[in-house]
Amino acid sequence: MEKKALPRFLYGGDYNPEQWPADTWPQDIQVFKQADINSATVNVFSWALLEPQEGQYDFSKLDQIVDELAAADFDIVMATSTAAMPAWMFKKYPGVARVDYQGRRHVFGQRHNFCPTSPDYQRLASDLVTRLAKRYGDNPRIVAWHVNNEYGGNCYCDHCAAAFRQWLRARYQTLDKLNAAWNMNVWSHTIHDWDEIVVPNELGDAWGPEGTETIVAGLSIDYLRFQSDAMLDLFKMEKGIIEQFAPDVPVTTNFHSLPNKMVDYQKWAKAQDIISYDSYPAYSMPTYHPVFLYDLMRTLKHQPFMLMESTPAQVNWQPYSPLKRPGQMRATELQAVAHGADTVQFFQLKQAVGGSEKFHSAVIAHSGRTDTRAFKEVARLGHDLKKVGPTIKDANIHAKVGIVFDWSNFWSLEYVDGITQDLQYVPIILDYYRQFYERNIPTDVISVDDDFSQYDLVVAPVLYMVKPGLGEKINRYVEEGGHFLTSFMSGMVNSSDNVYLGGYPGPLEDVTGAWVEESDAVVPGHRTTVRINDHEYDAHLICDQIHLTGAQAVATYANEFYVGTPAATENQYGRGMAWYVGSRLDHGGLWQIIDRVVKASGVKSLVDEATALEITARTTTDGHCLYFVLNMSNDQHALPMKFRGYRDLLTGQVAKPILAGWDVEILTRP
Amino acid sequence: MEKKALPRFLYGGDYNPEQWPADTWPQDIQVFKQADINSATVNVFSWALLEPQEGQYDFSKLDQIVDELAAADFDIVMATSTAAMPAWMFKKYPGVARVDYQGRRHVFGQRHNFCPTSPDYQRLASDLVTRLAKRYGDNPRIVAWHVNNEYGGNCYCDHCAAAFRQWLRARYQTLDKLNAAWNMNVWSHTIHDWDEIVVPNELGDAWGPEGTETIVAGLSIDYLRFQSDAMLDLFKMEKGIIEQFAPDVPVTTNFHSLPNKMVDYQKWAKAQDIISYDSYPAYSMPTYHPVFLYDLMRTLKHQPFMLMESTPAQVNWQPYSPLKRPGQMRATELQAVAHGADTVQFFQLKQAVGGSEKFHSAVIAHSGRTDTRAFKEVARLGHDLKKVGPTIKDANIHAKVGIVFDWSNFWSLEYVDGITQDLQYVPIILDYYRQFYERNIPTDVISVDDDFSQYDLVVAPVLYMVKPGLGEKINRYVEEGGHFLTSFMSGMVNSSDNVYLGGYPGPLEDVTGAWVEESDAVVPGHRTTVRINDHEYDAHLICDQIHLTGAQAVATYANEFYVGTPAATENQYGRGMAWYVGSRLDHGGLWQIIDRVVKASGVKSLVDEATALEITARTTTDGHCLYFVLNMSNDQHALPMKFRGYRDLLTGQVAKPILAGWDVEILTRP
Amino acid sequence: MEKKALPRFLYGGDYNPEQWPADTWPQDIQVFKQADINSATVNVFSWALLEPQEGQYDFSKLDQIVDELAAADFDIVMATSTAAMPAWMFKKYPGVARVDYQGRRHVFGQRHNFCPTSPDYQRLASDLVTRLAKRYGDNPRIVAWHVNNEYGGNCYCDHCAAAFRQWLRARYQTLDKLNAAWNMNVWSHTIHDWDEIVVPNELGDAWGPEGTETIVAGLSIDYLRFQSDAMLDLFKMEKGIIEQFAPDVPVTTNFHSLPNKMVDYQKWAKAQDIISYDSYPAYSMPTYHPVFLYDLMRTLKHQPFMLMESTPAQVNWQPYSPLKRPGQMRATELQAVAHGADTVQFFQLKQAVGGSEKFHSAVIAHSGRTDTRAFKEVARLGHDLKKVGPTIKDANIHAKVGIVFDWSNFWSLEYVDGITQDLQYVPIILDYYRQFYERNIPTDVISVDDDFSQYDLVVAPVLYMVKPGLGEKINRYVEEGGHFLTSFMSGMVNSSDNVYLGGYPGPLEDVTGAWVEESDAVVPGHRTTVRINDHEYDAHLICDQIHLTGAQAVATYANEFYVGTPAATENQYGRGMAWYVGSRLDHGGLWQIIDRVVKASGVKSLVDEATALEITARTTTDGHCLYFVLNMSNDQHALPMKFRGYRDLLTGQVAKPILAGWDVEILTRP
Repeated sequence: MEKKALPRFLYGGDYNPEQWPADTWPQDIQVFKQADINSATVNVFSWALLEPQEGQYDFSKLDQIVDELAAADFDIVMATSTAAMPAWMFKKYPGVARVDYQGRRHVFGQRHNFCPTSPDYQRLASDLVTRLAKRYGDNPRIVAWHVNNEYGGNCYCDHCAAAFRQWLRARYQTLDKLNAAWNMNVWSHTIHDWDEIVVPNELGDAWGPEGTETIVAGLSIDYLRFQSDAMLDLFKMEKGIIEQFAPDVPVTTNFHSLPNKMVDYQKWAKAQDIISYDSYPAYSMPTYHPVFLYDLMRTLKHQPFMLMESTPAQVNWQPYSPLKRPGQMRATELQAVAHGADTVQFFQLKQAVGGSEKFHSAVIAHSGRTDTRAFKEVARLGHDLKKVGPTIKDANIHAKVGIVFDWSNFWSLEYVDGITQDLQYVPIILDYYRQFYERNIPTDVISVDDDFSQYDLVVAPVLYMVKPGLGEKINRYVEEGGHFLTSFMSGMVNSSDNVYLGGYPGPLEDVTGAWVEESDAVVPGHRTTVRINDHEYDAHLICDQIHLTGAQAVATYANEFYVGTPAATENQYGRGMAWYVGSRLDHGGLWQIIDRVVKASGVKSLVDEATALEITARTTTDGHCLYFVLNMSNDQHALPMKFRGYRDLLTGQVAKPILAGWDVEILTRP
Repeated sequence: MEKKALPRFLYGGDYNPEQWPADTWPQDIQVFKQADINSATVNVFSWALLEPQEGQYDFSKLDQIVDELAAADFDIVMATSTAAMPAWMFKKYPGVARVDYQGRRHVFGQRHNFCPTSPDYQRLASDLVTRLAKRYGDNPRIVAWHVNNEYGGNCYCDHCAAAFRQWLRARYQTLDKLNAAWNMNVWSHTIHDWDEIVVPNELGDAWGPEGTETIVAGLSIDYLRFQSDAMLDLFKMEKGIIEQFAPDVPVTTNFHSLPNKMVDYQKWAKAQDIISYDSYPAYSMPTYHPVFLYDLMRTLKHQPFMLMESTPAQVNWQPYSPLKRPGQMRATELQAVAHGADTVQFFQLKQAVGGSEKFHSAVIAHSGRTDTRAFKEVARLGHDLKKVGPTIKDANIHAKVGIVFDWSNFWSLEYVDGITQDLQYVPIILDYYRQFYERNIPTDVISVDDDFSQYDLVVAPVLYMVKPGLGEKINRYVEEGGHFLTSFMSGMVNSSDNVYLGGYPGPLEDVTGAWVEESDAVVPGHRTTVRINDHEYDAHLICDQIHLTGAQAVATYANEFYVGTPAATENQYGRGMAWYVGSRLDHGGLWQIIDRVVKASGVKSLVDEATALEITARTTTDGHCLYFVLNMSNDQHALPMKFRGYRDLLTGQVAKPILAGWDVEILTRP
Repeated sequence: MEKKALPRFLYGGDYNPEQWPADTWPQDIQVFKQADINSATVNVFSWALLEPQEGQYDFSKLDQIVDELAAADFDIVMATSTAAMPAWMFKKYPGVARVDYQGRRHVFGQRHNFCPTSPDYQRLASDLVTRLAKRYGDNPRIVAWHVNNEYGGNCYCDHCAAAFRQWLRARYQTLDKLNAAWNMNVWSHTIHDWDEIVVPNELGDAWGPEGTETIVAGLSIDYLRFQSDAMLDLFKMEKGIIEQFAPDVPVTTNFHSLPNKMVDYQKWAKAQDIISYDSYPAYSMPTYHPVFLYDLMRTLKHQPFMLMESTPAQVNWQPYSPLKRPGQMRATELQAVAHGADTVQFFQLKQAVGGSEKFHSAVIAHSGRTDTRAFKEVARLGHDLKKVGPTIKDANIHAKVGIVFDWSNFWSLEYVDGITQDLQYVPIILDYYRQFYERNIPTDVISVDDDFSQYDLVVAPVLYMVKPGLGEKINRYVEEGGHFLTSFMSGMVNSSDNVYLGGYPGPLEDVTGAWVEESDAVVPGHRTTVRINDHEYDAHLICDQIHLTGAQAVATYANEFYVGTPAATENQYGRGMAWYVGSRLDHGGLWQIIDRVVKASGVKSLVDEATALEITARTTTDGHCLYFVLNMSNDQHALPMKFRGYRDLLTGQVAKPILAGWDVEILTRP
């Protein structure tokens, strides 16, 4: 059945009134309304209250919460409470708790620690969700269901081991294929019976903190795939139950982290009715990092998403939690909207008096006062969203640049044991994302399964793992006129982390016209440089030794014994072009390369001039373009010429020519 | 029964002759006497020799040791040997060993690793101590009993879990009260049966190295309280046995560390007949740190204490053990005396040939020689103490400044998950202690339960946890003319770590006349400044956003968006005054504030002039004042004018006008 | 029975064709031959293929490998495959896996993880080796047997505990002796029953990462001795089996690491027919470090050794793996030859497509190409060795300087808990080794059991542990005209780590004529200096306070309270001399001391002039001297005058007067 859309632009967030006396709730709701809050997410962590002992349920408090919110005209996001198990469950069924990487069964405590394959957990969670869905499924104020919470983290128990073996049988059919895929004749690892397979924890083939290193990458990557799938099955289990009782209400679970390495969100996205995301950028993070994540979230379904959690002021769990500067919270939330968010939701609406997050900010703080800077900023944003939300909602973004982000590469590249220990996936992807961000060129963050033909340019750095068919897909895309960029550490292995023989970058050699003989590591304290357009730039991490097999050099090394040899190349291939960047260039050096790529591929900035302002465009369903102009800094900056005379939706006035620190304008052509 | 006082000023320390052939003992004693050593602590770690198998005792060697020391006119501190269990006990009763934070039962090895709730340990320790007390209880040369050794460290076994639940029942009576106290509706933690409670180890609700972080601070703090209490019960058990046989001999256990976080010494002090302390300042420690600890130890019972352990030259277990410079050992030991020590005792009298402390210095070194620098300094100090000890003994110190140090705050503040990870209790307390130390203003280090009315000024920085009644006590103290200083991160939570609603600093808002809206974190690499008396100073860690609700600003921020707002305040309240310091000011900035506080509260330095010398005063029972003037540096410094013409007890001469490096004078008005 | 020598200078390495289809093998061999490779090491990790389930063997693939290599005229080094156990063995006999330092039994995975005392492992390994030896024992192409692989690492299981107790009974006979040896009356550790002894893991008496710290050094050192012995028994077991079927073929196991702390190679050397060594110097290692290890390996049996493993280009498991510069690989391999290697063998001959070492370089790379820089360098070296190998083989080195390296000191010194945490054994030994290396004075790296009389100078820094008889041996050596140097932290303890009473350096006091009263630690950020020949140099780590009891000072401290006192001494003793260096002098300061020592002892450089070139001499069995002149840098350097006109074996020409970067000449007097 077709799911309903969200009824309006939601402004709200997590609300846990079960932590407070019921007689305080009306006053809470009164305060929320002062800030034009129109929505609340409830029941995220209430299992122990809903089911104080097995099979004995008590929904009276939740009934009252739902009733009072509904009476106050709130839209409700109903969570299922399955992410934190009650203490009695650990006591009665110890197997519901995960066994950690060190091989230890955990006990009651924390949250997000259920074993995904535990039959007891599955049965008990299923029972609870059935009761919830039956009771609230037809409540018209519930506009979305929120399954579990921030899935992630691995279990290494015997149940998981058995389920993993089943998963492997389905994937490989025979042990011969499995042994070949994992290249198990190395170190006498050959498996002769499925039961000989053990999970890759610290007592087996993994090592390093929390299994960040491994002896058999194929095994470890498959285990991550399996755990991601096992959790996805849990999500689907809950979703299936909800759909029996609320067939037309969208179901989601909140994605999180920068991004979360444990869960393949691209695979999960197919099962979501709408994407939702929890955004907690650290103070020290460059502005393009959270934005990269928003673009990823939007691209997962090529649709607007929910900003399910964010903080109205401080978080508490980062190493340092400086205050957001005046205006900064508003700009930060609108930045998410600029990139596709159709909700602004906080964790949380009321600050807890105890527990590990008691110093996490909330709309209602410990003081309970509304004359605070933080509350006033929340209220101002509420007024803004009340005004502009209806116009923005459902407006989408159309990008001609796709940057590839792929969980199999995230996993496999960071398991690479070689060349340099400093190799990490996300920072390199961000290097490239930043190039387009600073040019204000709209960018999707795509999967390797996305349709490349919708893009003028596909950027796929460190595409280490190239699964079957992907090489051909890239070749075809470029042949037919596409533009493709890749880099060092690309085209090296197949889906099981076995190297493509015949030379790097394997399946990408044809399209790039380049062969990499070997790769130097840039060691600490050492400086290697490249020359591009008669200027020198720093080369970091890895320096590929490139042979041109059709391509031409667009950068050359400027020192070392390989001085003068190609450091980056450009290749005409069919009707398109491909670039190979052989080192981690500094920002200036990469800027030169990307200038060339942008020009050749014809992708366009939203403005003609360079600016420190961040600019995006969302196109409404009736075809109007909404330009978001964001000043993500304390300093003032001039509005680009193009927008002079545009109208600002927020003020209803003509756009101001100078944006003050943290100011935001949402502009339409007059 | 009234306990006897120590018969004289003890000079000696730990002596372990059981590690040596009996025929070497007379020679040892001969050497000790050359240094005027008059006392030895024996039997600290002899359980395996005293009871080679269960129930089979052999006191013959200890008898001989006691006899020989007595014959040589030594006073004996008799230890009970219960701090290191023999190997057979671990083998026969594995449950006597602790289960560590990682959930692992330990085996034979180390020391200080008995489970405090183990019935086997309790029974066996009780049996041993009964035998000891019976055998030696009436020995007149035993001047004190030394129970166990340096208690500390936690156990997480099932026995402890069960005992913890009993402890909680006694504290909270009902689960409703416990759930409220720990705010357990957060993250579905609600407990429905006492048996659902699990200990806060790494497999449950704690995390971080050794449980330094926690999900439920209330639980973790209560567990520390419980463990401290469980060990205190062990101490009381031993003490009770001893008192059956030696009712008038003082009983103590040696406190330690900087200070020891695991044991609430203020609660334990009530059960001690005399406080004893092991002092091992690291070379890199500022001179006021050990002194702070001496003042803490003296204040525990407001009486002189025993310096139970210290090193004659080098320790071995610190990262670096530079030699004490000529004269430095003597000055360091006399510094303890200056702050209230009535003994000077070393670990140890004779250096071991093997074991983990074999490179810890001793009075008799491996060389066995007495022509060494170290021995000659020990002997010189012995001669000094023989001369001045009788005069000094029992002289007490009377301070008008009390600095609050509180174990519940130590625990709770360091569990705070928020604002900045750099928050630590002791360094901030030391910031304030140093202010008075450098002014030579005598200071007590008091508990929140001490009688404030005996002080002109009570200083309570980072008084994060304010237990019931404490707010009122402070209000009353100031109303009646007292002076009170507190700081950021104060007045925030109740005894269960639940936040006081209505705004920070909660119960301290009235007396300070200040309301803190929110708190900025000072992030690494960033500089925030305050302005005081037209000078700028650095502000570290946290910057509170303060509203004046009666107070006036005495410092304002000099940059950031909150430039010009109050950084520290002063409030008239009743007949007294209160100050609130909203940031961790640098030494110079805090100096300005404390100047103001000192002047207003009328507390006095022992001298009128600034000096780099350390000065204390002990008042004898017959009312004479002994001024200790210590040069805790290599450089020479002039004696303050006030003391010109005073007599030096050590030399019997008039005080020298210049003190050489590490020199000490003990002066009386002529 | 006398063992056969290697038939020729081997050039080859590890070859794992079982990881590849059999139809690729002929092509592999063809490529190897292009590089003049004449040898392959096979069967290192094939257990799971050879014995797919217990007792069911399949040698067909190994038969084919051996046949094809033999047919191609390859010499074969036959490994026994016992270093990596098949998965079924862990499943059927969990006790074959080690219990780690944390007390956890491991499961299938990794390698080198068999419990050395497991009866199941011993039986199964014995069965396998018996089959292998029986099948291939008489194959004339097998020129050496390679037992297991890179032994090392400890087990802490119950089997090992029981075996350890047996080992201790044999060593100490009675518990009284054991208690005395370990000084167990400290901390109530006295043992009353052998069964009370527990292994020194993290749950017992050890602490620090992987047991690097210990409460009872005697226990921990004995445990290392026991584990080294238990593994040696495994080696001997395999060797004994092989000798039943191949009585005249040399048997070895490959030593490794820098060096390996876990295995006493000097004790093991007696059981080896020929020493073999795996050399993997890190890019950041000074050139004298690998050379030190070659000299150690050669000295183990005072014979040439096998370079069993090395890398043709990059390793993969070091933090950073920069490319070897052009010529660097060749120079690096010939450097081993210059110091006594009679083989050059790589890990590995063909690069794996998967597994943890897939980015470790190999002769045949992933590209499979032979037009690569790396392959061309391998081939060039092959041609070189084909030419010079026959001349070099069996040529030995005769040094007059012996530097002592001793595993008991390696272990005991690094357990020292005292003075400074920065104390490490190898770096200090390297300080001294470097002095002779840079002077091109040939040096043996000897054990304390070597015959000192063959050396003009014995250098034994940080000779902390002096076993019974060693002091007398040193005294006699010097008395009879020898020259002996030692340093701080020497002569301190006996074999059980109990301190020699009477003053440091204990048994070395007579020969050095010096007594050390105490030792200062040099703390971070602090500078201590010494004066030698009117210049000042830095003193690091430790500064001994030395009294001259016969010696004269050759260096004095230049600051600190001990300014002007001796920092290094020289003593005439009998017909010889002895030096004591009381601090870790910087390179320049030590240079001054060693200049003095070299002159007095009469040891000679191979050249009269200072040069940055590395020079060694190997003397052929017929008495010809082969001078290796190596330029271990990128810069060019002039050939020393002495060698003008000499002939270069490599070129057949007269030696070039200038050596280019990484160039090597092997010279003979014309």
